[in-house]
Amino acid sequence: MLNRTHGVRLGLSVGRQHHLQRLVLRRRAEDVVGLDSSDDASIDQAVNLMNRTSLAGVVVLSPSDPMLERLRLERLRAPWFVEAEPALEEGQDDTAHHPFAQVVNHLADLGHERFFYVGGPLTWLPARNRRAAYREVIRRRGLVNCGETTGEWGAPWGAQAMRSFPVGDKPTAVVAASDQLALGALHWLHERGIRVPEDVSVTGYDGIPDAAYFWPPLTTVEVDFAHLGRRTVDALLAHEASGRRPDDTTGPTSTLVVRASSGASATAR
Amino acid sequence: MLNRTHGVRLGLSVGRQHHLQRLVLRRRAEDVVGLDSSDDASIDQAVNLMNRTSLAGVVVLSPSDPMLERLRLERLRAPWFVEAEPALEEGQDDTAHHPFAQVVNHLADLGHERFFYVGGPLTWLPARNRRAAYREVIRRRGLVNCGETTGEWGAPWGAQAMRSFPVGDKPTAVVAASDQLALGALHWLHERGIRVPEDVSVTGYDGIPDAAYFWPPLTTVEVDFAHLGRRTVDALLAHEASGRRPDDTTGPTSTLVVRASSGASATAR
Repeated sequence: MLNRTHGVRLGLSVGRQHHLQRLVLRRRAEDVVGLDSSDDASIDQAVNLMNRTSLAGVVVLSPSDPMLERLRLERLRAPWFVEAEPALEEGQDDTAHHPFAQVVNHLADLGHERFFYVGGPLTWLPARNRRAAYREVIRRRGLVNCGETTGEWGAPWGAQAMRSFPVGDKPTAVVAASDQLALGALHWLHERGIRVPEDVSVTGYDGIPDAAYFWPPLTTVEVDFAHLGRRTVDALLAHEASGRRPDDTTGPTSTLVVRASSGASATAR
Repeated sequence: MLNRTHGVRLGLSVGRQHHLQRLVLRRRAEDVVGLDSSDDASIDQAVNLMNRTSLAGVVVLSPSDPMLERLRLERLRAPWFVEAEPALEEGQDDTAHHPFAQVVNHLADLGHERFFYVGGPLTWLPARNRRAAYREVIRRRGLVNCGETTGEWGAPWGAQAMRSFPVGDKPTAVVAASDQLALGALHWLHERGIRVPEDVSVTGYDGIPDAAYFWPPLTTVEVDFAHLGRRTVDALLAHEASGRRPDDTTGPTSTLVVRASSGASATAR
């Protein structure tokens, strides 16, 4: 469809490869290519590569702020579209209805009142939005936020975050900003003999396939990355056809998946 | 360095993205691009894409047999190099010294005598080589192979494989062909209350970062994918410089990492 301008599209992904993998596997595998670029130098190099190649368009998936900033500075020649959620603010209804709110509401419905939050890197909009949604539900439902951490997305940072777990404040729920952060948190709890979910419930976010095989299997929000990818590629195609970006970017993209890592609060039993 | 022929190199990866991720992060991020292609149609499309783009060379990482076959049929124009281990045969010393042999020897050194093998898809050379190495150590050390499975690489197939676990034969060690297969095996054992490592030891292979956070943390062989990647890219560069492929493709590429998922055999205690 994009062949008249040579027909090579690049999807530029930054570190969280599973977004792109699903997208690539399900949609237009011939034209979407993943680049992992996590620092300024490699982003500059990626832009140079893209400017040397004939591109109909570039899809940028879930970028960090520094990444977006570099892309703006570097003057990418091809039209580019960013797959990114809008920035949320605390106090707004949108924030209370972000998909991330589902795990916090689920835990509150199970009787949990005291929470600990294991967050992602705040240079990423999704990390800021997830924290905003967490805080919003805590506030609206009169729950207690016993502490928050920020870090990177992977399991090591989940385990490290738990060093700040305020045992004395008796939190009964750990809300992690990603499944891999939750994996690290589970590891820390197991090491100390704290039972999941009998003593502490743990939830993740993203819905990576492995999460169903963590121990205990992880309650999470499964995000439909293929849908997000299609939506973004459709926006790119619509732009090529009409010069305009389509208005409709809504649709179901996430589902709460309840597994054994979350259970009734010990204090509520 | 490859700019005289436009300077775009593509690394073609097939499904096991962590190879490529590490490669991309550590070496020449500007020029190595990942394509996930798991079926004939998408491989054909990938080759078409590569033939439409100016490429100095293509690096093919750990392909499956059908993938290699398609690449041969499809006449890729750019020079291409395959990162693949040589095919191993049972009865050879090379087979007994494949890095995969390290987990089996480690378990035998702990006193394990009765083994169960959770294998990968046999259309992949690495899956065949790992099974050959497993069988070779079992044979040379006079151990008992209580059963073998084949499947895909991921956790769901690890859990499914364990349905064939011959409880009556009392195997005390599960050797999985990948860390994610091991994750599925751990899940199955936990669900049945079989303790790891007290009742059954489990080992993986690859050394993905999450494996250190599995429960219990997974004994595995950490493969230096960055080294494999550099070696392959170096072969490509050497070919461009001299028209010949370098002979030296040896070097350390793997390390046994012992964690809590493997312990002394109950029968040996």
